[in-house]
Amino acid sequence: MQEIRDRIVREGSNLGRGILKVDSFINHQVDANLMMNAGRELGRRFADAGVDKVLTAEISGIAPALTTALTLNVPVIYARKTKPITMPESIYREQAPSHTKGHFVDLMVSPEVLHAQERVLIVDDFLATGQTIAALGRIVQRSGAILVGIGTVIEKTFEGGRAFLTAYFDVPIESLVIITNMSDGRIVFADQ
Amino acid sequence: MQEIRDRIVREGSNLGRGILKVDSFINHQVDANLMMNAGRELGRRFADAGVDKVLTAEISGIAPALTTALTLNVPVIYARKTKPITMPESIYREQAPSHTKGHFVDLMVSPEVLHAQERVLIVDDFLATGQTIAALGRIVQRSGAILVGIGTVIEKTFEGGRAFLTAYFDVPIESLVIITNMSDGRIVFADQ
Repeated sequence: MQEIRDRIVREGSNLGRGILKVDSFINHQVDANLMMNAGRELGRRFADAGVDKVLTAEISGIAPALTTALTLNVPVIYARKTKPITMPESIYREQAPSHTKGHFVDLMVSPEVLHAQERVLIVDDFLATGQTIAALGRIVQRSGAILVGIGTVIEKTFEGGRAFLTAYFDVPIESLVIITNMSDGRIVFADQ
Repeated sequence: MQEIRDRIVREGSNLGRGILKVDSFINHQVDANLMMNAGRELGRRFADAGVDKVLTAEISGIAPALTTALTLNVPVIYARKTKPITMPESIYREQAPSHTKGHFVDLMVSPEVLHAQERVLIVDDFLATGQTIAALGRIVQRSGAILVGIGTVIEKTFEGGRAFLTAYFDVPIESLVIITNMSDGRIVFADQ
Protein backbone atom coordinates (compact mmCIF):
# COMPACT_ATOMS: atom_id res chain seq x y z
CA MET A 1 0.00 0.00 0.00
CA GLN A 2 1.84 3.01 -1.36
CA GLU A 3 0.39 5.54 1.11
CA ILE A 4 1.82 3.72 4.13
CA ARG A 5 5.10 2.95 2.40
CA ASP A 6 5.54 6.64 1.56
CA ARG A 7 4.79 7.54 5.14
CA ILE A 8 7.38 5.08 6.47
CA VAL A 9 9.96 6.56 4.11
CA ARG A 10 9.09 10.07 5.28
CA GLU A 11 8.52 9.57 9.03
CA GLY A 12 9.64 6.09 10.03
CA SER A 13 13.01 5.42 11.55
CA ASN A 14 15.11 2.34 11.92
CA LEU A 15 16.23 2.19 15.55
CA GLY A 16 18.34 -0.92 15.01
CA ARG A 17 17.71 -4.54 16.05
CA GLY A 18 14.70 -4.63 13.71
CA ILE A 19 12.82 -1.92 15.57
CA LEU A 20 10.84 0.37 13.29
CA LYS A 21 9.67 3.59 14.88
CA VAL A 22 6.33 4.61 13.33
CA ASP A 23 4.79 6.23 16.37
CA SER A 24 3.89 9.46 14.61
CA PHE A 25 1.20 7.75 12.49
CA ILE A 26 0.67 4.09 13.53
CA ASN A 27 1.11 3.30 17.21
CA HIS A 28 1.18 6.36 19.50
CA GLN A 29 -0.16 9.10 17.34
CA VAL A 30 -2.44 7.48 14.76
CA ASP A 31 -3.27 9.09 11.44
CA ALA A 32 -6.97 8.27 11.56
CA ASN A 33 -7.54 8.60 7.82
CA LEU A 34 -4.48 6.53 6.96
CA MET A 35 -5.69 3.85 9.39
CA MET A 36 -9.15 3.92 7.83
CA ASN A 37 -7.55 3.40 4.41
CA ALA A 38 -5.52 0.50 5.82
CA GLY A 39 -8.72 -1.04 7.22
CA ARG A 40 -10.47 -0.58 3.87
CA GLU A 41 -7.66 -2.35 2.06
CA LEU A 42 -7.50 -5.24 4.54
CA GLY A 43 -11.29 -5.48 4.35
CA ARG A 44 -11.10 -5.59 0.56
CA ARG A 45 -8.54 -8.38 0.63
CA PHE A 46 -10.71 -10.50 2.92
CA ALA A 47 -14.08 -9.45 1.48
CA ASP A 48 -14.84 -12.99 0.28
CA ALA A 49 -13.73 -14.79 3.46
CA GLY A 50 -17.13 -14.61 5.15
CA VAL A 51 -15.65 -12.91 8.22
CA ASP A 52 -17.92 -12.84 11.30
CA LYS A 53 -15.46 -11.18 13.68
CA VAL A 54 -12.09 -9.46 13.68
CA LEU A 55 -9.71 -10.41 16.50
CA THR A 56 -6.65 -8.46 17.60
CA ALA A 57 -4.42 -7.96 20.63
CA GLU A 58 -4.40 -4.78 22.67
CA ILE A 59 -2.86 -2.19 22.35
CA SER A 60 -1.55 -1.21 18.96
CA GLY A 61 -3.66 -3.75 17.06
CA ILE A 62 -6.87 -1.99 18.05
CA ALA A 63 -6.78 0.83 15.48
CA PRO A 64 -6.25 -1.26 12.31
CA ALA A 65 -8.56 -4.00 13.60
CA LEU A 66 -11.35 -1.50 14.27
CA THR A 67 -11.10 0.09 10.82
CA THR A 68 -11.05 -3.36 9.19
CA ALA A 69 -14.11 -4.36 11.23
CA LEU A 70 -15.87 -1.13 10.17
CA THR A 71 -15.16 -2.00 6.54
CA LEU A 72 -16.38 -5.59 6.92
CA ASN A 73 -19.35 -4.48 9.04
CA VAL A 74 -18.55 -6.93 11.86
CA PRO A 75 -17.56 -6.59 15.55
CA VAL A 76 -13.93 -6.55 16.67
CA ILE A 77 -12.56 -8.29 19.77
CA TYR A 78 -9.33 -7.17 21.39
CA ALA A 79 -7.62 -9.78 23.52
CA ARG A 80 -6.72 -8.34 26.92
CA LYS A 81 -3.22 -8.58 28.42
CA THR A 82 -4.36 -7.95 31.98
CA LYS A 83 -7.60 -9.42 33.22
CA PRO A 84 -10.29 -6.79 33.79
CA ILE A 85 -12.67 -7.32 36.72
CA THR A 86 -15.49 -7.58 34.21
CA MET A 87 -14.04 -10.76 32.68
CA PRO A 88 -15.46 -14.10 33.86
CA GLU A 89 -13.39 -16.68 35.74
CA SER A 90 -13.11 -19.12 32.88
CA ILE A 91 -11.48 -17.60 29.82
CA TYR A 92 -9.32 -18.47 26.83
CA ARG A 93 -5.76 -17.60 27.80
CA GLU A 94 -2.60 -18.08 25.74
CA GLN A 95 0.90 -16.74 26.20
CA ALA A 96 3.23 -15.09 23.74
CA PRO A 97 6.83 -14.00 24.24
CA SER A 98 7.22 -10.25 23.95
CA HIS A 99 10.43 -9.66 22.01
CA THR A 100 10.53 -6.01 22.97
CA LYS A 101 9.80 -6.57 26.67
CA GLY A 102 11.80 -9.76 27.23
CA HIS A 103 9.09 -11.74 29.01
CA PHE A 104 5.81 -13.53 28.31
CA VAL A 105 2.51 -11.73 28.00
CA ASP A 106 -0.92 -13.24 28.49
CA LEU A 107 -3.61 -12.82 25.88
CA MET A 108 -7.14 -13.34 27.19
CA VAL A 109 -10.49 -13.59 25.46
CA SER A 110 -13.83 -14.13 27.14
CA PRO A 111 -15.89 -17.10 25.91
CA GLU A 112 -18.82 -14.69 26.10
CA VAL A 113 -17.66 -12.96 22.91
CA LEU A 114 -15.98 -15.69 20.83
CA HIS A 115 -18.06 -18.69 19.83
CA ALA A 116 -17.71 -21.98 17.98
CA GLN A 117 -18.12 -21.78 14.22
CA GLU A 118 -17.59 -18.01 14.03
CA ARG A 119 -15.30 -17.10 11.15
CA VAL A 120 -12.44 -15.00 12.52
CA LEU A 121 -9.95 -12.67 10.81
CA ILE A 122 -6.91 -11.77 12.92
CA VAL A 123 -5.58 -8.23 12.35
CA ASP A 124 -2.52 -6.64 13.91
CA ASP A 125 -0.30 -3.64 13.23
CA PHE A 126 2.91 -5.67 12.79
CA LEU A 127 3.80 -9.14 11.59
CA ALA A 128 7.27 -9.73 13.05
CA THR A 129 8.01 -13.08 14.71
CA GLY A 130 4.35 -14.03 14.50
CA GLN A 131 4.24 -15.12 18.15
CA THR A 132 1.42 -12.80 19.22
CA ILE A 133 -0.66 -13.69 16.19
CA ALA A 134 -0.01 -17.40 16.81
CA ALA A 135 -1.31 -17.02 20.38
CA LEU A 136 -4.45 -15.36 19.01
CA GLY A 137 -4.76 -18.21 16.50
CA ARG A 138 -4.61 -20.78 19.31
CA ILE A 139 -7.38 -18.91 21.13
CA VAL A 140 -9.50 -19.10 17.96
CA GLN A 141 -8.85 -22.84 17.71
CA ARG A 142 -9.62 -23.50 21.38
CA SER A 143 -12.93 -21.65 21.12
CA GLY A 144 -14.04 -23.81 18.20
CA ALA A 145 -14.20 -20.74 15.98
CA ILE A 146 -12.68 -20.87 12.49
CA LEU A 147 -9.61 -18.84 11.57
CA VAL A 148 -10.08 -17.57 8.02
CA GLY A 149 -7.16 -15.18 7.58
CA ILE A 150 -4.45 -12.98 9.01
CA GLY A 151 -3.98 -9.36 8.00
CA THR A 152 -1.32 -6.92 9.14
CA VAL A 153 -0.29 -3.39 8.28
CA ILE A 154 3.50 -3.84 8.24
CA GLU A 155 5.36 -7.13 7.84
CA LYS A 156 9.05 -7.54 8.59
CA THR A 157 9.91 -10.67 6.63
CA PHE A 158 13.38 -10.99 8.19
CA GLU A 159 11.81 -11.95 11.53
CA GLY A 160 10.26 -15.03 9.98
CA GLY A 161 6.67 -14.62 11.19
CA ARG A 162 4.99 -15.63 7.94
CA ALA A 163 6.88 -18.94 7.75
CA PHE A 164 6.19 -19.61 11.44
CA LEU A 165 2.45 -18.93 11.10
CA THR A 166 2.15 -20.89 7.86
CA ALA A 167 3.44 -23.97 9.69
CA TYR A 168 0.51 -23.81 12.13
CA PHE A 169 -2.36 -22.15 10.30
CA ASP A 170 -3.51 -22.89 6.78
CA VAL A 171 -4.97 -19.45 6.00
CA PRO A 172 -4.08 -16.54 3.73
CA ILE A 173 -1.77 -13.92 5.23
CA GLU A 174 -1.93 -10.39 3.86
CA SER A 175 0.31 -7.46 4.77
CA LEU A 176 -0.10 -3.96 3.38
CA VAL A 177 3.60 -3.09 3.45
CA ILE A 178 6.43 -5.63 3.43
CA ILE A 179 9.90 -4.78 4.69
CA THR A 180 12.61 -7.29 3.81
CA ASN A 181 15.71 -5.83 5.39
CA MET A 182 16.53 -3.37 8.17
CA SER A 183 20.24 -4.09 8.55
CA ASP A 184 22.79 -1.26 8.50
CA GLY A 185 20.15 1.38 9.17
CA ARG A 186 18.27 0.70 5.96
CA ILE A 187 14.54 0.14 5.41
CA VAL A 188 14.21 -2.06 2.32
CA PHE A 189 10.73 -2.71 0.94
CA ALA A 190 9.65 -5.74 -1.06
CA ASP A 191 8.50 -5.00 -4.58
CA GLN A 192 4.74 -5.21 -4.19
CA MET B 1 -27.45 8.70 22.71
CA GLN B 2 -30.36 6.30 22.52
CA GLU B 3 -28.53 3.55 20.62
CA ILE B 4 -25.92 3.13 23.36
CA ARG B 5 -28.44 3.48 26.15
CA ASP B 6 -30.57 0.73 24.59
CA ARG B 7 -27.53 -1.46 24.30
CA ILE B 8 -26.61 -0.95 27.96
CA VAL B 9 -30.16 -1.90 28.95
CA ARG B 10 -29.98 -5.03 26.81
CA GLU B 11 -26.39 -6.21 27.34
CA GLY B 12 -24.81 -4.23 30.17
CA SER B 13 -24.64 -5.53 33.69
CA ASN B 14 -24.16 -3.89 37.04
CA LEU B 15 -21.45 -5.88 38.83
CA GLY B 16 -21.70 -3.81 42.01
CA ARG B 17 -19.37 -1.12 43.41
CA GLY B 18 -20.14 1.05 40.38
CA ILE B 19 -18.69 -1.41 37.90
CA LEU B 20 -20.60 -1.52 34.62
CA LYS B 21 -19.86 -4.50 32.41
CA VAL B 22 -20.18 -3.48 28.76
CA ASP B 23 -17.52 -5.75 27.32
CA SER B 24 -19.75 -7.22 24.64
CA PHE B 25 -19.90 -3.93 22.72
CA ILE B 26 -17.58 -1.27 24.23
CA ASN B 27 -14.34 -2.52 25.77
CA HIS B 28 -13.45 -6.12 24.88
CA GLN B 29 -15.67 -6.89 21.96
CA VAL B 30 -16.41 -3.58 20.22
CA ASP B 31 -19.44 -3.02 18.03
CA ALA B 32 -17.58 -1.17 15.29
CA ASN B 33 -20.65 0.54 13.85
CA LEU B 34 -21.93 1.61 17.27
CA MET B 35 -18.47 3.02 18.03
CA MET B 36 -18.42 4.86 14.71
CA ASN B 37 -21.81 6.38 15.58
CA ALA B 38 -20.46 7.39 19.00
CA GLY B 39 -17.47 9.05 17.31
CA ARG B 40 -19.75 10.85 14.86
CA GLU B 41 -21.86 12.21 17.72
CA LEU B 42 -18.83 13.32 19.77
CA GLY B 43 -17.39 14.87 16.61
CA ARG B 44 -20.67 16.70 16.00
CA ARG B 45 -20.71 18.09 19.54
CA PHE B 46 -17.17 19.46 19.19
CA ALA B 47 -17.39 20.40 15.51
CA ASP B 48 -16.93 24.11 16.28
CA ALA B 49 -14.07 23.69 18.78
CA GLY B 50 -11.33 23.86 16.15
CA VAL B 51 -9.87 20.53 17.28
CA ASP B 52 -6.36 19.76 15.97
CA LYS B 53 -5.87 16.46 17.80
CA VAL B 54 -7.80 13.94 19.84
CA LEU B 55 -6.02 12.58 22.94
CA THR B 56 -6.98 9.44 24.85
CA ALA B 57 -5.45 6.84 27.16
CA GLU B 58 -4.78 3.30 26.09
CA ILE B 59 -6.55 0.81 26.10
CA SER B 60 -10.29 1.19 26.01
CA GLY B 61 -10.22 4.86 25.03
CA ILE B 62 -8.66 4.04 21.68
CA ALA B 63 -11.82 2.94 19.85
CA PRO B 64 -14.05 5.98 20.62
CA ALA B 65 -11.09 8.37 20.24
CA LEU B 66 -10.25 6.93 16.81
CA THR B 67 -13.81 7.21 15.50
CA THR B 68 -14.07 10.78 16.86
CA ALA B 69 -10.77 11.63 15.15
CA LEU B 70 -12.05 10.11 11.90
CA THR B 71 -15.13 12.30 12.14
CA LEU B 72 -13.13 15.46 12.89
CA ASN B 73 -10.49 14.53 10.29
CA VAL B 74 -7.59 14.91 12.74
CA PRO B 75 -4.97 12.55 14.22
CA VAL B 76 -5.48 10.77 17.53
CA ILE B 77 -2.81 10.25 20.20
CA TYR B 78 -3.11 7.49 22.76
CA ALA B 79 -1.10 8.02 25.92
CA ARG B 80 0.96 4.93 26.74
CA LYS B 81 0.91 3.24 30.15
CA THR B 82 4.20 1.41 29.64
CA LYS B 83 7.03 3.11 27.83
CA PRO B 84 7.73 1.61 24.42
CA ILE B 85 11.34 1.42 23.27
CA THR B 86 10.43 3.78 20.44
CA MET B 87 9.62 6.60 22.87
CA PRO B 88 12.31 9.24 23.49
CA GLU B 89 13.95 9.77 26.92
CA SER B 90 12.22 13.01 27.70
CA ILE B 91 8.42 12.68 27.71
CA TYR B 92 5.31 14.10 29.32
CA ARG B 93 4.43 11.74 32.17
CA GLU B 94 1.55 12.05 34.62
CA GLN B 95 0.08 9.57 37.08
CA ALA B 96 -3.50 8.60 37.73
CA PRO B 97 -4.89 6.29 40.41
CA SER B 98 -6.54 3.23 38.89
CA HIS B 99 -9.67 2.60 40.92
CA THR B 100 -10.10 -0.87 39.46
CA LYS B 101 -6.45 -1.90 39.87
CA GLY B 102 -5.73 -0.26 43.21
CA HIS B 103 -2.47 1.43 42.27
CA PHE B 104 -1.16 4.31 40.19
CA VAL B 105 -0.70 4.09 36.44
CA ASP B 106 1.61 6.24 34.36
CA LEU B 107 0.33 8.03 31.29
CA MET B 108 3.03 9.01 28.83
CA VAL B 109 2.98 11.16 25.71
CA SER B 110 5.93 11.92 23.48
CA PRO B 111 6.69 15.60 22.87
CA GLU B 112 7.24 14.53 19.26
CA VAL B 113 3.47 14.26 18.75
CA LEU B 114 1.94 16.91 21.04
CA HIS B 115 2.92 20.52 20.48
CA ALA B 116 2.31 23.95 21.95
CA GLN B 117 -0.80 25.74 20.66
CA GLU B 118 -2.44 22.56 19.30
CA ARG B 119 -6.12 22.44 20.21
CA VAL B 120 -6.79 19.12 21.93
CA LEU B 121 -10.01 17.21 22.57
CA ILE B 122 -9.75 14.46 25.21
CA VAL B 123 -11.95 11.41 24.52
CA ASP B 124 -12.38 8.33 26.70
CA ASP B 125 -14.86 5.48 27.02
CA PHE B 126 -15.84 6.28 30.64
CA LEU B 127 -16.06 9.37 32.78
CA ALA B 128 -16.03 8.01 36.33
CA THR B 129 -13.78 9.69 38.92
CA GLY B 130 -12.16 11.77 36.18
CA GLN B 131 -8.65 10.97 37.42
CA THR B 132 -7.39 9.50 34.13
CA ILE B 133 -8.83 12.38 32.14
CA ALA B 134 -7.32 14.88 34.59
CA ALA B 135 -3.89 13.30 34.07
CA LEU B 136 -4.36 13.66 30.30
CA GLY B 137 -5.42 17.26 30.86
CA ARG B 138 -2.23 17.96 32.83
CA ILE B 139 -0.20 16.51 29.95
CA VAL B 140 -1.96 18.88 27.56
CA GLN B 141 -1.19 21.83 29.85
CA ARG B 142 2.47 20.88 30.29
CA SER B 143 2.94 20.59 26.52
CA GLY B 144 1.63 24.09 25.99
CA ALA B 145 -1.24 22.72 23.91
CA ILE B 146 -4.76 23.99 24.51
CA LEU B 147 -7.45 21.76 25.97
CA VAL B 148 -10.72 22.56 24.20
CA GLY B 149 -13.06 19.85 25.45
CA ILE B 150 -13.67 16.48 27.03
CA GLY B 151 -15.94 13.85 25.48
CA THR B 152 -16.84 10.44 26.84
CA VAL B 153 -19.16 7.63 25.84
CA ILE B 154 -20.56 6.76 29.28
CA GLU B 155 -20.56 9.00 32.35
CA LYS B 156 -21.26 7.74 35.86
CA THR B 157 -22.23 10.95 37.66
CA PHE B 158 -22.21 9.31 41.10
CA GLU B 159 -18.39 9.01 40.93
CA GLY B 160 -18.06 12.78 40.74
CA GLY B 161 -15.74 13.07 37.75
CA ARG B 162 -17.49 16.01 36.10
CA ALA B 163 -17.30 18.13 39.25
CA PHE B 164 -13.66 17.16 39.76
CA LEU B 165 -12.67 18.02 36.18
CA THR B 166 -14.66 21.26 36.18
CA ALA B 167 -12.59 22.46 39.12
CA TYR B 168 -9.39 22.14 37.07
CA PHE B 169 -10.35 22.63 33.45
CA ASP B 170 -12.64 25.29 32.06
CA VAL B 171 -13.86 23.36 29.02
CA PRO B 172 -17.15 21.77 27.90
CA ILE B 173 -17.65 18.14 28.95
CA GLU B 174 -19.93 15.98 26.83
CA SER B 175 -21.04 12.42 27.55
CA LEU B 176 -23.22 10.36 25.22
CA VAL B 177 -24.94 8.39 27.98
CA ILE B 178 -25.24 9.53 31.60
CA ILE B 179 -25.85 7.08 34.43
CA THR B 180 -26.85 8.64 37.74
CA ASN B 181 -27.23 5.66 40.03
CA MET B 182 -26.02 2.06 40.15
CA SER B 183 -26.92 1.22 43.73
CA ASP B 184 -28.95 -1.90 44.55
CA GLY B 185 -28.20 -3.50 41.19
CA ARG B 186 -29.94 -0.78 39.21
CA ILE B 187 -28.72 1.18 36.18
CA VAL B 188 -30.51 4.55 36.29
CA PHE B 189 -30.07 6.89 33.32
CA ALA B 190 -30.33 10.68 33.41
CA ASP B 191 -33.11 12.13 31.31
CA GLN B 192 -31.19 13.37 28.28
